[in-house]
Amino acid sequence: MDESQGIELGFAQIKKYLAENRIQEFRDSFLDLHLYEQGEFYQSLTQEERVHLYSYLSPKEVADAFDLIEEDKETMKDYLSEMRPSYAAAMLAAMYTDNAVDFLNLLGKQETAKYLSLMSNEEAAEIKELLHYEDDTAGSIMTTEYVSIVANQTVRSAMQVLKSAADFAETIYYIYVVNQENQLVGVISLRDLIINDDDTLISEIMSERVISVHVGDDQFDVAQTFRDYDFLALPVTDYDDHLLGIVTVDDIIDVIDDEATSDYSGLAGVNVDEVGEAPLKAATKRLPWLITLLFLGMATATLIGKYEVLVSEASILAVFISLITGTAGNAGTQSLAVAVRRLAMNDAKGSSFIRIIFSEILTGLVTGAVTGITIFVIVAIWKGNPILGLVIGAAMMAAITVANLAGSFIPMLMDRLGFDPAVASGPFITTLSDLTSVLIYFNIASMFMSYFK
Amino acid sequence: MDESQGIELGFAQIKKYLAENRIQEFRDSFLDLHLYEQGEFYQSLTQEERVHLYSYLSPKEVADAFDLIEEDKETMKDYLSEMRPSYAAAMLAAMYTDNAVDFLNLLGKQETAKYLSLMSNEEAAEIKELLHYEDDTAGSIMTTEYVSIVANQTVRSAMQVLKSAADFAETIYYIYVVNQENQLVGVISLRDLIINDDDTLISEIMSERVISVHVGDDQFDVAQTFRDYDFLALPVTDYDDHLLGIVTVDDIIDVIDDEATSDYSGLAGVNVDEVGEAPLKAATKRLPWLITLLFLGMATATLIGKYEVLVSEASILAVFISLITGTAGNAGTQSLAVAVRRLAMNDAKGSSFIRIIFSEILTGLVTGAVTGITIFVIVAIWKGNPILGLVIGAAMMAAITVANLAGSFIPMLMDRLGFDPAVASGPFITTLSDLTSVLIYFNIASMFMSYFK
Repeated sequence: MDESQGIELGFAQIKKYLAENRIQEFRDSFLDLHLYEQGEFYQSLTQEERVHLYSYLSPKEVADAFDLIEEDKETMKDYLSEMRPSYAAAMLAAMYTDNAVDFLNLLGKQETAKYLSLMSNEEAAEIKELLHYEDDTAGSIMTTEYVSIVANQTVRSAMQVLKSAADFAETIYYIYVVNQENQLVGVISLRDLIINDDDTLISEIMSERVISVHVGDDQFDVAQTFRDYDFLALPVTDYDDHLLGIVTVDDIIDVIDDEATSDYSGLAGVNVDEVGEAPLKAATKRLPWLITLLFLGMATATLIGKYEVLVSEASILAVFISLITGTAGNAGTQSLAVAVRRLAMNDAKGSSFIRIIFSEILTGLVTGAVTGITIFVIVAIWKGNPILGLVIGAAMMAAITVANLAGSFIPMLMDRLGFDPAVASGPFITTLSDLTSVLIYFNIASMFMSYFK
Repeated sequence: MDESQGIELGFAQIKKYLAENRIQEFRDSFLDLHLYEQGEFYQSLTQEERVHLYSYLSPKEVADAFDLIEEDKETMKDYLSEMRPSYAAAMLAAMYTDNAVDFLNLLGKQETAKYLSLMSNEEAAEIKELLHYEDDTAGSIMTTEYVSIVANQTVRSAMQVLKSAADFAETIYYIYVVNQENQLVGVISLRDLIINDDDTLISEIMSERVISVHVGDDQFDVAQTFRDYDFLALPVTDYDDHLLGIVTVDDIIDVIDDEATSDYSGLAGVNVDEVGEAPLKAATKRLPWLITLLFLGMATATLIGKYEVLVSEASILAVFISLITGTAGNAGTQSLAVAVRRLAMNDAKGSSFIRIIFSEILTGLVTGAVTGITIFVIVAIWKGNPILGLVIGAAMMAAITVANLAGSFIPMLMDRLGFDPAVASGPFITTLSDLTSVLIYFNIASMFMSYFK
């Protein structure tokens, strides 16, 4: 964006106002920034400057910026601990409840209790209500700042409700219609309110076929509903249709990002969000996987060791070990990526399990056959030894088929058993496929040893 | 979602109405569905049923459902070709322009020209305007159905403009303020209109610091702006600030999905969106990569062939080939995934290139050292040969460092040269790292041959 340079220049000016205690100019220029830029500005300050800033901005004003700040746990803790506790509590209370809850979840129970005790009972109750929902459910990403009305009102009075709610509600673009028991019975968009006459009854124009999600639904399923229906917000209900909150599209964008990052991290055996970390810290995070896989790789080495006598008799066999394990590993990774994607798209649940596995074996047989024949021709010509070519080709075909099977079967099995299929990472599948490839290769080779010596 | 079963049952009933020519009941029940469900219903029909449906629904009513249908090229072509050309043209004209353009892009130039010739000049002009924007730019995902006003109006008259626009505009939640030359000068949200008095001037309450994107901006950068600012729509301008269109958040969700899929596909060397394809077709798509990598793998095999004499002298060396290439490949994949993610997050542009490469080498040295020492200890004890352990350990450390370097350098170089860094796929890096690992391994081993015989 072209604006960024202008913003950076502006930041220097605003910092100058802050340093020189030019309160009004500081407030005007800071509050004129977009909320995201306010957050960026805040994050660009030193601790000293931030403490200075707290005296010139109200907790509510800082809360608006905090709604758009995403930082790691330690930094967020630092931010809070440098505020006076009452100021911090007031700021948390002024944030959108879902964001405040995300924040408090970083802090741990004791800290959370401290800040809750400093809030009004009403404010604390709202936050407590959301705190107990399980991670990654609709409940954990919803907010309670929605607008609801009862059906026997006119458009005019609904607009009045909206006006008074516009200040606190996270979205005013949908208004949810509830009955006396707070059960969700309809929804109406602001667009509908605007195009209808002021005297129209809400019950006449509301949509009664409300799409809603349950509070315990997985957040990825909620994201899928957003993708399908192109909504800006969805209501969240309990199992008796009581309206509990809403999920807004900005939170869903974060969920979709998380989903992609988690799949992607799984495929590479690394948390790809380590971006920007110091080399030593990055190494510490990558090593557990590498060492685990090293031990798994030792199994392959041990297995090759068992066939060492074959290799010593025909060293030509050693030449093709990495070609066969490598190609099978590549095929297994392809198969894994497709399977994890399929699971993420909810495309592989239920009865189709067998069908998908069968289809992957078939794909493996076809790719294996083509690759096997290719390598047979190459080796037969290159080494002038068609039998060697046959052995390599046959081993390649079998190894690829097994790798394809493992690449789809393992993640699907994990999903069935209730584990995250992305944990079946790419390197894990590759290393496992090395083991089976070597086994296949040397077993086939041992049958034809007389041709290689 | 629990509703799905209810919807399926409903579908059967609606199909029955259609089959029995109970027009009014069919129309009522169909139009009562959410647009997404209308699309689902439409997709569940046979061709015969669809042709039947066209006679009972207006092009505009079908267009609403089509705005939410996502299907492959062939199916979309079939849908269009079974409608009368004038009906199809009217439907395309009634869709949101950005969706109609996506649709027409599937059809090719000749078909597109046919449908455009059947529309009114005005409708055709709107579509033509969007057709010429390059893929993956803000221009290619924007729509021209926005609401704009001039600044010297009151809230009351702006609300009037909104009311008349609510029917066609893709979003009415932001109103863009332009000057006489149609240059973007401000923005006001519907929320602002609602909380202000009817007689307030727009110029008094609009925000003049409008965040906008340029028509040629990459769609991933546009998505990043959405993520940062939590907007529901962003205006798109040319390089002289003229307002050309808007991008809405529902299209951005698709962009973010595409982005994730493309990175993910790159890491596995397979288009993960092949989901649901027949085994033979899937195999055809995976084979080009596998065969390419097979030839690259042949280079590694040839290289090992050069050292065959070493292996024939000390077959123990063969035992560790796959362990070293495998572990280095795993490290390279980790490094690649982090680099591609960093590039996607726009975190690696400009001067930090050298710093990031340096930091990856350092990470490689640390992980390499720890892994190398681990394998040294294991081999020294297992094989009772500390010199062999030293060779394996040293080769492992060097191979991991080089793989880490390649995993970050190659995608960043590709990005610099203007290629998509995700093309530097995981299997490619792994196969390349096999080659260097073997080279390093045998070179180190050859120095200590006397200890292994």
